[in-house]
Amino acid sequence: MTQTVWWQDDHPALIDQTRLPFEEVVVHCYDPEAVATAITSMQVRGAPAIGVTAAYGIALAARIAAGAASWSHSGSADAFHEAVTRACALLARTRPTAVNLFWAIERMRRVLSAQQGDPQERAAALMVEALAIAAEDVAACRRMGEAGATLIRDGMGLLTHCNAGALATTGIGTATAPFYVAQEQGRAFHVYVDETRPLLQGARLTAWELRRASIPFTLIADTMAAYTMQLGRINAVFVGADRVAANGDTANKIGTYGVALSAHIHQIPFYVVAPMSTIDFATPDGASIPIEERRPDEVRHAHGHPLVPDDYPVFNPAFDLTPAQYITAIITDQGIVYPPFANSLATLLGTSPRVGAR
Amino acid sequence: MTQTVWWQDDHPALIDQTRLPFEEVVVHCYDPEAVATAITSMQVRGAPAIGVTAAYGIALAARIAAGAASWSHSGSADAFHEAVTRACALLARTRPTAVNLFWAIERMRRVLSAQQGDPQERAAALMVEALAIAAEDVAACRRMGEAGATLIRDGMGLLTHCNAGALATTGIGTATAPFYVAQEQGRAFHVYVDETRPLLQGARLTAWELRRASIPFTLIADTMAAYTMQLGRINAVFVGADRVAANGDTANKIGTYGVALSAHIHQIPFYVVAPMSTIDFATPDGASIPIEERRPDEVRHAHGHPLVPDDYPVFNPAFDLTPAQYITAIITDQGIVYPPFANSLATLLGTSPRVGAR
Repeated sequence: MTQTVWWQDDHPALIDQTRLPFEEVVVHCYDPEAVATAITSMQVRGAPAIGVTAAYGIALAARIAAGAASWSHSGSADAFHEAVTRACALLARTRPTAVNLFWAIERMRRVLSAQQGDPQERAAALMVEALAIAAEDVAACRRMGEAGATLIRDGMGLLTHCNAGALATTGIGTATAPFYVAQEQGRAFHVYVDETRPLLQGARLTAWELRRASIPFTLIADTMAAYTMQLGRINAVFVGADRVAANGDTANKIGTYGVALSAHIHQIPFYVVAPMSTIDFATPDGASIPIEERRPDEVRHAHGHPLVPDDYPVFNPAFDLTPAQYITAIITDQGIVYPPFANSLATLLGTSPRVGAR
Repeated sequence: MTQTVWWQDDHPALIDQTRLPFEEVVVHCYDPEAVATAITSMQVRGAPAIGVTAAYGIALAARIAAGAASWSHSGSADAFHEAVTRACALLARTRPTAVNLFWAIERMRRVLSAQQGDPQERAAALMVEALAIAAEDVAACRRMGEAGATLIRDGMGLLTHCNAGALATTGIGTATAPFYVAQEQGRAFHVYVDETRPLLQGARLTAWELRRASIPFTLIADTMAAYTMQLGRINAVFVGADRVAANGDTANKIGTYGVALSAHIHQIPFYVVAPMSTIDFATPDGASIPIEERRPDEVRHAHGHPLVPDDYPVFNPAFDLTPAQYITAIITDQGIVYPPFANSLATLLGTSPRVGAR
């Protein structure tokens, strides 16, 4: 399985996803600033992976601060607390939409607050928590895959948008997890991959990981999804999420909403696959989810190559909102839930003590 | 106004649209084979422009054959007829979807059949017909613009897909004609331009011509159209057509169908703008329209730059079908028609003696 982000010796490392599929470059982050830059520049992306990366960034800040404290006795506990808190604030400013980021930071903050003792012990507790967040992500992906695979039958054509794959998590992905599990179970199916402009995560990342996993796929431009549905080649859509509101409204990569509308008109099931950490019970509906706008050059370029002059006006929302009414089911690590999501998600929350913290 | 394709001295010339927006290169076609290549390679594209270019290609073949006949007396009439017929067949094989191609070739064939006399006279008659086709296209664009401009009010946000602009015709375009006329009439509006993957005709061509015309626009990736509608920024959609069936079903650039579905759900008027030469009364409905599939590399690349490895499997339909039920009105050079299109288009046909020839 593709490794996305991991703890290596004394620092987080990650594969630079802006360079895929032509170059496999590992980025080593030796300070929290480098971790923040890796997130904002989308060297690492995908809601669960961002959460894990931020947790590692905070663990790294703690480790560095504990090291400094070990040779400076006066005020070292205060300095440690301040350094870790500063890292939390820095990482919270990287990207606004994916809620896993804030959820992971909040978990780390709680450990910071709960721990007394010397900086070394507190740093160790923060490291344990970050590794737990990563391990839980791996397990959550597996559970989503097992739940979602029950919806995949032999001979199906499936569509996915963006990359909610192994590269978006530390496990087997969210939207792709059912593909990996269905493949393990011996089912034959075909995946249509939306290229996902402007940053081409479908073309560059999802196709790359499906190829490595020997899952048959066909790459299409985003313009082709509706027509491919009209031709009868798509039997279900699986997408990830950056934030699911309490009523089921879902923020996900720009273009998801258009795919959902086309699926709705063609009566094709549209599944959102997301761990409980992506469900934001504090946000009542989609209108309350902040949507990140990114640099115009992302639209003016394609994988670094200019397509149009640099002064053409551009609108570049990184995400869109799919109202719950267009979502057939949400596949979580706690099981599959159906509309009305306000009820079904709340029921899940009641059974999942780790979630809903924010 | 942008010049797209024109007769220069003794041959057709055209702007190479594969090189825009960074390079403005003129292609000179000195034989029918070069004209055919210009069409297949999409140096010239857009249904009306393809029709005019094919007519020029046939006029060129006639001119060359007449020149050869002037110094060879035996069998010259037969050789002339054969050479022009061969050019018609060659050009008919270039692209399957846009009906204007076949309509223009048919008009040229009729002139060829109707004319007796020596090859020079027949070549002159074919030249006159080709120039008439171009002149009629200019006039048709103007009439579509005047009809369509009545639908544009101050402050509107408009969306267009692909390039159905001046670069797709010899006049002011089809879908863009209402923009040019509304601007002349002093109305203020804003155009959202879908980039239109894979070949980026929106980003490379429509944005380029709107910029030259000082019409305010914003470029978006195709993934952003549905969300921009959800935000309330789009009040009407204008697209062109490569072929409209007798019942109103419309083949147009891939991605049009998805835009139509999103417009339908948001209750945004969706207008198809097409001259009568694009309406194929011999084709009963969309299912009978052949949809061209093009090279996989168009999807693997963006404006010549590779995005993914060359062996990734790709599906690359160049057009899609929008069923009549999602079309609010069709704006033709004979006026605006509304559903049911089978009736309203047939009524137009009765008043338009030039059309329905095929």
